[in-house]
Amino acid sequence: MKREILLTPGPVELHPRVRLVLSSPQIHHRTEPAREAFLAVREGLKKAFGTEGEVLLFTTSGTGGMEALAAGLFAPGEKVLVPVSGKFSERWAEIGEALGLSVERIELPWGEVLDPEAIAARVSPDTRGLFLTHSETSTGVLNPVAEIAKAAREKNPEILVIVDAVTSLFLSPFALDAMGFDAAVSGSQKGLMLPPGLAFVALGNRALSTLKPRGYYLNLARELESQRAGEGAYTPAIQLVLAAREVLSVLLPELDAHLEKKARWNRALYAIGERLGLVPVPAKGGAPASEAFRSPATAAFYLPEGVSYKALSGAFLARGYRVAGGQGPLKGRVFRVSLMGHFTEEEAQRVLADVEAILEETLLTPGGRPRASRRSG
Amino acid sequence: MKREILLTPGPVELHPRVRLVLSSPQIHHRTEPAREAFLAVREGLKKAFGTEGEVLLFTTSGTGGMEALAAGLFAPGEKVLVPVSGKFSERWAEIGEALGLSVERIELPWGEVLDPEAIAARVSPDTRGLFLTHSETSTGVLNPVAEIAKAAREKNPEILVIVDAVTSLFLSPFALDAMGFDAAVSGSQKGLMLPPGLAFVALGNRALSTLKPRGYYLNLARELESQRAGEGAYTPAIQLVLAAREVLSVLLPELDAHLEKKARWNRALYAIGERLGLVPVPAKGGAPASEAFRSPATAAFYLPEGVSYKALSGAFLARGYRVAGGQGPLKGRVFRVSLMGHFTEEEAQRVLADVEAILEETLLTPGGRPRASRRSG
Repeated sequence: MKREILLTPGPVELHPRVRLVLSSPQIHHRTEPAREAFLAVREGLKKAFGTEGEVLLFTTSGTGGMEALAAGLFAPGEKVLVPVSGKFSERWAEIGEALGLSVERIELPWGEVLDPEAIAARVSPDTRGLFLTHSETSTGVLNPVAEIAKAAREKNPEILVIVDAVTSLFLSPFALDAMGFDAAVSGSQKGLMLPPGLAFVALGNRALSTLKPRGYYLNLARELESQRAGEGAYTPAIQLVLAAREVLSVLLPELDAHLEKKARWNRALYAIGERLGLVPVPAKGGAPASEAFRSPATAAFYLPEGVSYKALSGAFLARGYRVAGGQGPLKGRVFRVSLMGHFTEEEAQRVLADVEAILEETLLTPGGRPRASRRSG
Repeated sequence: MKREILLTPGPVELHPRVRLVLSSPQIHHRTEPAREAFLAVREGLKKAFGTEGEVLLFTTSGTGGMEALAAGLFAPGEKVLVPVSGKFSERWAEIGEALGLSVERIELPWGEVLDPEAIAARVSPDTRGLFLTHSETSTGVLNPVAEIAKAAREKNPEILVIVDAVTSLFLSPFALDAMGFDAAVSGSQKGLMLPPGLAFVALGNRALSTLKPRGYYLNLARELESQRAGEGAYTPAIQLVLAAREVLSVLLPELDAHLEKKARWNRALYAIGERLGLVPVPAKGGAPASEAFRSPATAAFYLPEGVSYKALSGAFLARGYRVAGGQGPLKGRVFRVSLMGHFTEEEAQRVLADVEAILEETLLTPGGRPRASRRSG
């Protein structure tokens, strides 16, 4: 199999410490070394999420963690508000609906940045929950979730604010307690640079006081009881827990510098695209959104007129890179390039130079003038 | 961390092909090589489960697969029968109860082999399902599940028979269609000798025709649609899928010989224990059960009078081996030794010699006479 370097917004290039751990002999999960690692990862993730509450590990993808939160914090019939502006915010709505919650969708054009006041205007006294997507991976939008939480809580102080931090944790500043969230979820195969297979569920103190035991495998209350003692209720993906401990031990002490570096690389991706006339997907009121609303997890651009995703991704593949296309209504209309995984500075600069060269070759007309980039509603 | 050789009934010593794959660079799950591996694993597992139906992969422990089956095949309020004779048969009952099924438990002493006629006697025309545990890992019992399915179906031809094959697949002959089962579940960290993190869910044709979309992450109907095209509905633990393909490629062509070898090693474990006066846990009508009812996944013995589990497991640890104790009502009363993981013949013979030496040292009184082994109700 030809080696492809992943410029996809998850799974990503693994942290070098991960591969060594994953090739180690199997250890048993109900032993002291396993419990130590499990507790160290929970503690490390509490710092990363910025909460005095709890972090639980689930052996699932991030989606499993999302469902655990929706099931464990809300009862069927309870009213929850879900702004839908991309694939992952739509997933919150689908999960709520599958669990029988009374989901009120706020449908927005995919790629549009959420407006705190517009969302708060939909909050009513009987709105029990608000599901937000911090970094909307499908569109590259970074939503102003702290401002939204604040505005929503002014309308209804009792509302529970649940945040998808799957591609914002370890990429964009995050602070569950300080930003006024009640719970959040992330996954191993994103900012932590592990393979997929672990979800991280963070619960603030208010969420902890309202846990509803529901279901079995994704049951927050049951896991909380086991995980306080350093064990999953069922056999966890212990090899990923060990790998997570390794990466956290190097990432947490330098987290600010890490976030700055990731943001800088992603700005460089946008700068390359915009210089070539590409239109970024993140938008505010229909116009390209400023940098503050672009997720550092991925750069997303509309494909210009006359350039198919197949041609563009093929040009990247020919140079050994895997990029991502659009999902849902953006399928065939956008492409996404991400430096979320592990790269040294030197590797990242080489990738940036290659991205620039590939885009130039693919996008520039023979005369050298950039093709018009296309947006449509 | 000192290396421990796992003689636990899961997680187990990894197959040598696994560690190489797990230390490879990350690949993306929505690519042709990933889809090929995904489909190859589903096909291989269909052979292993012995079904013309479907096998679905879930990124969960085996428990997640159990819940997916209970949720996808039964509606709340439907009556299901669950014989409870160990930790994992009890888990079927707990899952059914958590999902709101009308669970009728048949409570038996832990370690007792299920009796087909006694179970069939409890089947009524409105019994929609029967949850069985083939190899009850907590007690070492191998239940006569084919005979139970046959007897139950004679009472009610419409009954759906669901089998926990977590520690019987790749260890004991299994044939979903031919044995009259409708669905079964297994997990990666057992007979397949992978790390934990993947569940395998097998669905016969009758089960496939009654799927109820329910929940989100553990939704059989949703996964079936995605997985027919070689992709999970959500990001799967693709590195485990790749590792599973490797192990299946060597295991399936020699499956009969592999089963024979595992059974032989487990018989050797029982022979050692019985020679030293230990009483096996698997029992029929209160007396030690014959070999046909002992799971090849693990040997389980009662601890003799005056020997604590701590002392015994400590003696194994001092020699570099991790064994397992009892669960639930058997906690502190039994110990379990397993050769389920990967060992060469030479390694297995060395382990068997060491097990014999450790048990002799620990169990024999200074005078050299075996201590009395204890059973209690």
